[in-house]
This record gives sequence, C-alpha cells and structure tokens, in this order.
Amino acid sequence: MKKEIKTVAKPQKPEFYPVILAGGRGTRFWPLSRKCMAKQLLPLNSQKSMIQETVERLLAAAPAKNFWVVTNGDLRAPIMRQLKTLNRKQLLAEPVGRNTAPAIGLAAFILLHHDPDAILGLFPSDHVIANEKQFHKDLAKGIAIAAAGENIVVMGIQPTRIETGYGYIETGAKARNGALRVRRFTEKPDTERAAEFVAAGNYYWNSGMFLWAASTLAAALHEYLPKTAKILEQIAASYGTKKFEATFKRLYPQCEDISVDYALLEPRSAKGEEASNLFCIPADFGWNDLGSWAAHYEHRLTQGHKVNAVESQGVFTLDAQGNYLYAPGKFIAAVGVHNLVVVDTGDALLITTRERAQDVGKIVKYLDEKKLKKLV
Amino acid sequence: MKKEIKTVAKPQKPEFYPVILAGGRGTRFWPLSRKCMAKQLLPLNSQKSMIQETVERLLAAAPAKNFWVVTNGDLRAPIMRQLKTLNRKQLLAEPVGRNTAPAIGLAAFILLHHDPDAILGLFPSDHVIANEKQFHKDLAKGIAIAAAGENIVVMGIQPTRIETGYGYIETGAKARNGALRVRRFTEKPDTERAAEFVAAGNYYWNSGMFLWAASTLAAALHEYLPKTAKILEQIAASYGTKKFEATFKRLYPQCEDISVDYALLEPRSAKGEEASNLFCIPADFGWNDLGSWAAHYEHRLTQGHKVNAVESQGVFTLDAQGNYLYAPGKFIAAVGVHNLVVVDTGDALLITTRERAQDVGKIVKYLDEKKLKKLV
Repeated sequence: MKKEIKTVAKPQKPEFYPVILAGGRGTRFWPLSRKCMAKQLLPLNSQKSMIQETVERLLAAAPAKNFWVVTNGDLRAPIMRQLKTLNRKQLLAEPVGRNTAPAIGLAAFILLHHDPDAILGLFPSDHVIANEKQFHKDLAKGIAIAAAGENIVVMGIQPTRIETGYGYIETGAKARNGALRVRRFTEKPDTERAAEFVAAGNYYWNSGMFLWAASTLAAALHEYLPKTAKILEQIAASYGTKKFEATFKRLYPQCEDISVDYALLEPRSAKGEEASNLFCIPADFGWNDLGSWAAHYEHRLTQGHKVNAVESQGVFTLDAQGNYLYAPGKFIAAVGVHNLVVVDTGDALLITTRERAQDVGKIVKYLDEKKLKKLV
Repeated sequence: MKKEIKTVAKPQKPEFYPVILAGGRGTRFWPLSRKCMAKQLLPLNSQKSMIQETVERLLAAAPAKNFWVVTNGDLRAPIMRQLKTLNRKQLLAEPVGRNTAPAIGLAAFILLHHDPDAILGLFPSDHVIANEKQFHKDLAKGIAIAAAGENIVVMGIQPTRIETGYGYIETGAKARNGALRVRRFTEKPDTERAAEFVAAGNYYWNSGMFLWAASTLAAALHEYLPKTAKILEQIAASYGTKKFEATFKRLYPQCEDISVDYALLEPRSAKGEEASNLFCIPADFGWNDLGSWAAHYEHRLTQGHKVNAVESQGVFTLDAQGNYLYAPGKFIAAVGVHNLVVVDTGDALLITTRERAQDVGKIVKYLDEKKLKKLV
C-alpha cells in the first residue's frame, strides 16, 4: 500500500502547471499593504514575501517555465521585481478583476494549445503553509487524482474554530489515497451553521487550492459559463502574438465576474457525490490565510513571539499583553495596553484592536473615497 | 482704589529681574522630550516652545538684559538657539543639578553686586499661562509687595481638583491688593489631605513662581542655608571674570541639593503668619503645568480639539474617543480605541493610556539604565 502511494505521488507525466492568483489587494493589512504592494508582496511569514514563498514552495513540484501568475496592472511590475525566476510572459495582468473563474480559465485555454494533457493547480499567493513536506505529499495525491480522469480536486483544511469567513466543503465517501468525495460547497455560513459544520466532523474549509486537468476545466467552463468560455478561448488563441495584449484588454472585461466555487464547483456538486467527480484532500500542512492583523498576531505567537508580537528596533513593555506592535527601525514602548494593533509606516499610523482588525478595510474604503491616492 | 492699584502695578523702580528655571528633563513627555530637547523646549502650547512663551510673556515686565536662565550643560546650546534675545552670559548652566534654592540663590548673589535693589522673580519654564493680561496684573501686585519690604511672595493657584502631585499653600489673613498671608506649605499631600485642602477653600497650589528682593533672598539663604549661601557668594564674586566657569564648576556641587520650598519657605513659615512676611497672590491666569501627556490631552481639548486630540497629516477615526494621538506628518487611522496615548517620533513609538501617562518616566529610567543614549 505504501509503495503504491509513492508511485502515484511522483508522476513524471502529465506535466503540472501551477497558476498563482495574485490580483488581490489585501486591504486589511493597511497601512503596510498598498495598491502597488498588496498583501502577497509583503514578508508576513518570513524574510520572503508571501508570493515568493508560494513560488519557491511550488518549484519543488514544477519547473519555473510551467508557472503562471495572474494579477492586475498595479501589481505586475512589483511582482516581476520579486519573482526573478519567472519570465514576463508568465504574468497575466487582468485589465479588470473578474474573480477566479475567468482567471484560471484563461490559463487553462492557453495551456491546452501546447499541452493537451496539462494538469493545472490553482493557488492563492498570500497564504502560509508551515509544513512544506506534508504540502507536497498532499499535492502529489491531488495531482494523481486530477490526472486520472475528469476530476476536480480541492484542498480542504480541517476546521479549528467556528469561522464564518470561509467556504465549507461537506465530504462524503472515502476515495483512494485518503481523498474524500465532495457532497456540497457552502460559502460563508452564519455562526450557527458554521458551528454545526465544525461539530459534524466531515466538513473542511475551502483553501482555494484546486487541481484539475486543463481539459477538465475547459469542459466545465463550456458547460457552466459558456459565454465566458468562448471569450477566454478567443483571448487564448491570440496568446504569443502581437495582438494578445489588445485582445486581452478588449475582451476580458466581457467575462462574467465570478469565482470558481460559484461558477463551477457548486453546480457540479449538484450532480451528486458520485457523478460530480469532486474530490477533497483533507490537507494538514499548517495552513493559515492570515486574513487580518489579528490572524497575523496569532501566527506570530506560533513563531515564538510571546505575550506581544513586536517588530521593532528594541522594545520596553510594562503591563502590556496581547498586542501586535509593528514599527520596524523604531524603539517601541508600551505601558498598560492590551490587545492593540499598532502599525507604523513612513506615512501612516494604524491604531486599532485585535477585535476590530476586520474593520481595517474600512479605512482603505475611506481613503479611496477621499481620493487620498498616496495612502492606498 | 482702582487708581492706587494701577500706580502700584507699574513700578519704575526698583528693577525687576526674571530668573527662569530650565534645568528639568520632563521625562514624562518622552519620546518627544529628550536630554537635549527637554519639555521646556517643546512647542506644547503653540508654535513656540514653552520657554520661548515664558520669555516672551515676561518681556512685557522686564527688558531682555534683566533675564537669567538657569539650566544644565545638555540644554545650554539648544536653549541659546531658541532664545535669540538673550546673551550667552545670561544663561547659567549648572555643572550638576542642585534643585531650586542654589539656582535662584546664585542669581540673587550675582545681581546684588550691581543692583542692590533688584527684585527677583523665579519662574518655571514649562508651564502654560492662558491669560497673559491677568498674569501681568498678578505679577505687578507681587512685585509691589516684594519691593515693599523683606517679603516673599508666591503665586498660588486655585485648586480645581484633588491633586496629590503638587505643593499646597495654606493662607490666612487678607493683606493689601488681594494678597493673602501664608500660614504653611505642605508638599504633595496624600489623597485624603488633598481632599481636605481643596474643600477648605483657603488652600492654593504652589505654582513655583516666587517674587522677592535679591537682598531678602540673600538674607534668607544666610539664615537657613548658611553653608550654601557662602559658596554661592564665592561663585557670584567671580562672575564676569575669567575664573567664573571654573569656580562655578568646582564649588557649585558643594551646595545643598534642596528646593526653595523646603530650604526657605517652610522654615520661614514657622515664624507665624504675621512675622514670616510670606504672601500668596491668588492667581487666576489659566495656569497649567502640563505634567504629562494626559494633562496635555486635557489642555488640547480647551484649545478646540474634540473627542480626540490629534496631531497629524490627516486622520480617520471610527469608534475612537478620548485618545491623544501624535504623529506629525503621518496619516493616523484609529478604529475602536479609547483613552490611548500614542506618540510617534522618528526613532520611537510610545503606546500607553491616559491613565498610565504618569508612568512614561519609567521608560526613560529603563533607557537610562540600558544606556540607550540615542533614545533619551
């Protein structure tokens, strides 16, 4: 049995192509995150940025030439500066954001032109994965399932709290290699339902990581988003020609603005647990989506920070616990304060609490409205 | 009666000499206050620094040549830069701090050499006086009393709260021009006694502003601090000669380290209300000693700031009240925080509460101990 897994875990053929989604803005990490320095470009987990970590991790599973990064015009140049191993042509800068379905779809249609057997992986660019070894084990399982038929594989995370901000995957029967059949997807449930899901034991968080053959994805797009699929085919046909940029810019805005989850996975799951060919890999590789400064505080504690998570040039604390204090290059003194989030950059100072960290996006909304462009 | 006050209020003779004490460090205003940029050098009340305001205010009562500033070696140069109207010789930089009695005493002995009729005023350099017109009325009353005999005059502030951080003056019989006889001085009482004092109605806060003839002060020093008085006479005798700096440096450390209050006023008050010739002017000129960031917050509200006192380049607040937020040149965003004090300088970030603002000095103590000289 063990031997069988090993054989499956290292397929030489078909080739694997990671598609990294890097178009998000990450406004909840303001004032560190900006339009041209989104969350995925920040070194929130190590000295490297989140997207650098994502690419380096996946380089163990695919050669650099197989990578695709989908982002937007604001982030194209800064991403190129961070990802020296990638070629300019591997970055697709969406003229307008159209969510994940058109983004991964375009990559699939382009790939089908030169590798009809291509296996695609969709990966967020701004999540922490603490256990790389386990990640590659789970990834290999998923690739094998994706390569074995018209299957769609999603990486599911064992829930550790009642969280209303994520999508949940209800799983059913056991499939091979520890994978599970998928029954249903439920986006952001209310607290009551989230609690039920967590208690049930067969629900997983949707990590946003998917694996499938390019042909499987293309077929699903034609089935569920036929109009968008045709537009994407047209754009893909121009890839590698002089007309590509203009075609992309002209046609892409006509695509539907919809996520993979809503567009493909939910309708496909309606076919039933067996017929849908949807699989969930219960992944256990220390995943954290670092959704806010508060999540980053929790993550810092796992990295060895004590009662306060502090980034500074020296610190003095007196009766101060539970604070996230960020002011690199400065000496920080905290007296009699608790559960605060204070983030100091060259031009801005954020002062809030861990409890209110979700509201940081509202500041960016205000700055956008007031057209304070230097600050966003 | 009105006419009589006017005559008294503008004496042409004897001359008045303001002595400004500027040797304090003001550690409770860290990180803005530093060894070479003490509280009195900071623009806490207006665009001008506290000591600039103090000097300008007193220039209406005495010509620039009559001023003395007593400070320390660290502050001499920065004070000279701020006080362009004063001559270098008018700044006495104590080789070591010896509290207020030797500081004012030295000025008195030097003055007696060239003006035996000199009237001296002792003034802190770091207090707010909101009503200058009233200040000059009260000052003129005090000068008249000081000039009329061997009197010692103190400016008393009507208490507005039960404050344990100040000295209290118990007053007795009414004297001329609204002045009161002084019965007793009590330094920093406990809460219970402070409450009694405030309730009694005849107690005033000691503002640290005193008025007396140089000869009166010299006599009091000879009576109560004879050893120190002789040392100060020696130093004063060398003033204006090449030997002054060396003599000052050699002898001044031998002076007793004691305040005017303990050394002269308390023993003198023991002579009894009549015989002591101690007078209190109940002053009402909008005095505030700005003892901490919390006091500065309260003061800012009187200056028109609303629920938060903010110094910044733009601000966004959401559910944030009672905060003192200082980050000039930066955009500040405060969400869901209350009663905080956050002060941002180029090299340091203070995060505390208004309630704990008194403890800011402890940070400086820590920095001193750790020899983090750049930060103090």
